Amino acid sequence: MDGKLIECVPNFSEGRDRGKVEAIVQAITSAAGVHLLGWECDRDHNRGVVTFAGPPAAVVEGAFRGVRKAVELIDIRSHHGVHPRIGAADVVPLVPIEGITLAECAELAHSLGSRIATELGVPIYFYEAAALRSERRNLENIRRGGWEALREAAAADPSRAPDAGGPQLHPTAGASAVGARKFLLAFNVNLDTGDIGVARRIARKIRASSGGLPHVKAMGVFLESRGQAQVSMNLTDFEVTPLHTVFEAVRSEAEAAGVAIAGSEIIGLMPAEALAQAAAHFLRCENYRPGRILEKRLLSNLVD
Amino acid sequence: MDGKLIECVPNFSEGRDRGKVEAIVQAITSAAGVHLLGWECDRDHNRGVVTFAGPPAAVVEGAFRGVRKAVELIDIRSHHGVHPRIGAADVVPLVPIEGITLAECAELAHSLGSRIATELGVPIYFYEAAALRSERRNLENIRRGGWEALREAAAADPSRAPDAGGPQLHPTAGASAVGARKFLLAFNVNLDTGDIGVARRIARKIRASSGGLPHVKAMGVFLESRGQAQVSMNLTDFEVTPLHTVFEAVRSEAEAAGVAIAGSEIIGLMPAEALAQAAAHFLRCENYRPGRILEKRLLSNLVD
Repeated sequence: MDGKLIECVPNFSEGRDRGKVEAIVQAITSAAGVHLLGWECDRDHNRGVVTFAGPPAAVVEGAFRGVRKAVELIDIRSHHGVHPRIGAADVVPLVPIEGITLAECAELAHSLGSRIATELGVPIYFYEAAALRSERRNLENIRRGGWEALREAAAADPSRAPDAGGPQLHPTAGASAVGARKFLLAFNVNLDTGDIGVARRIARKIRASSGGLPHVKAMGVFLESRGQAQVSMNLTDFEVTPLHTVFEAVRSEAEAAGVAIAGSEIIGLMPAEALAQAAAHFLRCENYRPGRILEKRLLSNLVD
Repeated sequence: MDGKLIECVPNFSEGRDRGKVEAIVQAITSAAGVHLLGWECDRDHNRGVVTFAGPPAAVVEGAFRGVRKAVELIDIRSHHGVHPRIGAADVVPLVPIEGITLAECAELAHSLGSRIATELGVPIYFYEAAALRSERRNLENIRRGGWEALREAAAADPSRAPDAGGPQLHPTAGASAVGARKFLLAFNVNLDTGDIGVARRIARKIRASSGGLPHVKAMGVFLESRGQAQVSMNLTDFEVTPLHTVFEAVRSEAEAAGVAIAGSEIIGLMPAEALAQAAAHFLRCENYRPGRILEKRLLSNLVD
């Protein structure tokens, strides 16, 4: 496999009908060379997340097949959930894992996006390292207002026109954001309160966009199924701002508001390093380094 | 490689002359198929630890070559250090990593030990899962009194006779303990005191042998290079007694003695899982499971 490994973590706008997500997973893994790493449905966010990896060509083919199946099965017009989204195959990020640069992943994203636009009629927005317009590096700018806003704006407002395909969105599948990025950690902290205002204030305090922690995106959401408010976060560079820094910032803000932490959640997979550096922090370990993780060392030897 | 991976973590009685340990590492990696994962020298313990992995036959051959080089270079008669030891190649454990049982590793240990005894004239004690006498499952029983005691007892006391070779120890290389075991975590907590008595009392309180935490071995040592007392530990089943449980037990005993924690140290490599479960504990993560670690998932797919 010439030593290159990438990962793809597409998010689909379906988290309640497991059968549909299973069909998408089957479509992805029908591509030879794809290693399925996991998939899960989130009822509250009404999203399905699939994680797979392998050699670049295999992963790109698997991603295309997954998007094609999502376009077939998901009707964004009837989608409801607490997470902003612009289409059936909402985001399709390619992530370098081993022996490949972020820039190479951006090139792969461009060819994948063009193929989706051409063959499936779903307009594409390129984001993060694959962005063609600097303001689209940030996914939030693409998804602002969700599908409901974008279906009006895509054709009417040049600043919101797709990068490939369109300008009209696909009638049932909306649009997709295809990108290349570093590994993204999705990490949520649940508060021992049903008051979403507390979660929103904490999110505002800690997120990068309002001067908080760098590379942290955060929002307050209310989890119907638990009756709890949650600070829902994405960490876009965990080497700069690690899990434990984020957790302790949320805990400290919550304490200041007189609210206890109920627990936290990991969404999807995590590189061993993300958890290991948190462990090293809490264990006060003086000599931790990523090279101490057995699986990382073995993997880099085995992919040669 | 038929899907089987084992690890070997031999400990040699040399931690101050890096050139000698480098020569041992070179001997090990001269065996085809061996992946060197790391090696380090500990001046205070005066021990060198090498970690390597690969298919069983490759690892066993690498281990043999490493022991042969240690026998050539290390004279146990002039060895001084705070760690108990019985020979130049003090312990040679085989550890199942992927697709192989502990019992199979015990069989490999038996053939490796016989070869060392026969070809190198170094008597062997089999320990843990490879033990031929139940009292030798525990390595401490084999090493009791160190090389100084064993060189007298090996030939004179039948209860201390070697399992292979001997009964006289090798004149300069002593004896070796060859075994099979689960992954062992070596974890030390440094105390903000030079009083070794505090470290010893904490060790006694937490170790399994005196009714403390299961699968924890602990002793108090004094680190000359730091002027600090240390609780030096081995965790022999981190799934039963995790790192964070041990760390918090030491911290709580130290606090009761009015002593602060100065820091902690990892020796050698660790499975991602050992650190991840500690992170999950401290982050109050509700949905952590080993399957969330990317590298573990990829590795198990790639070794097929």
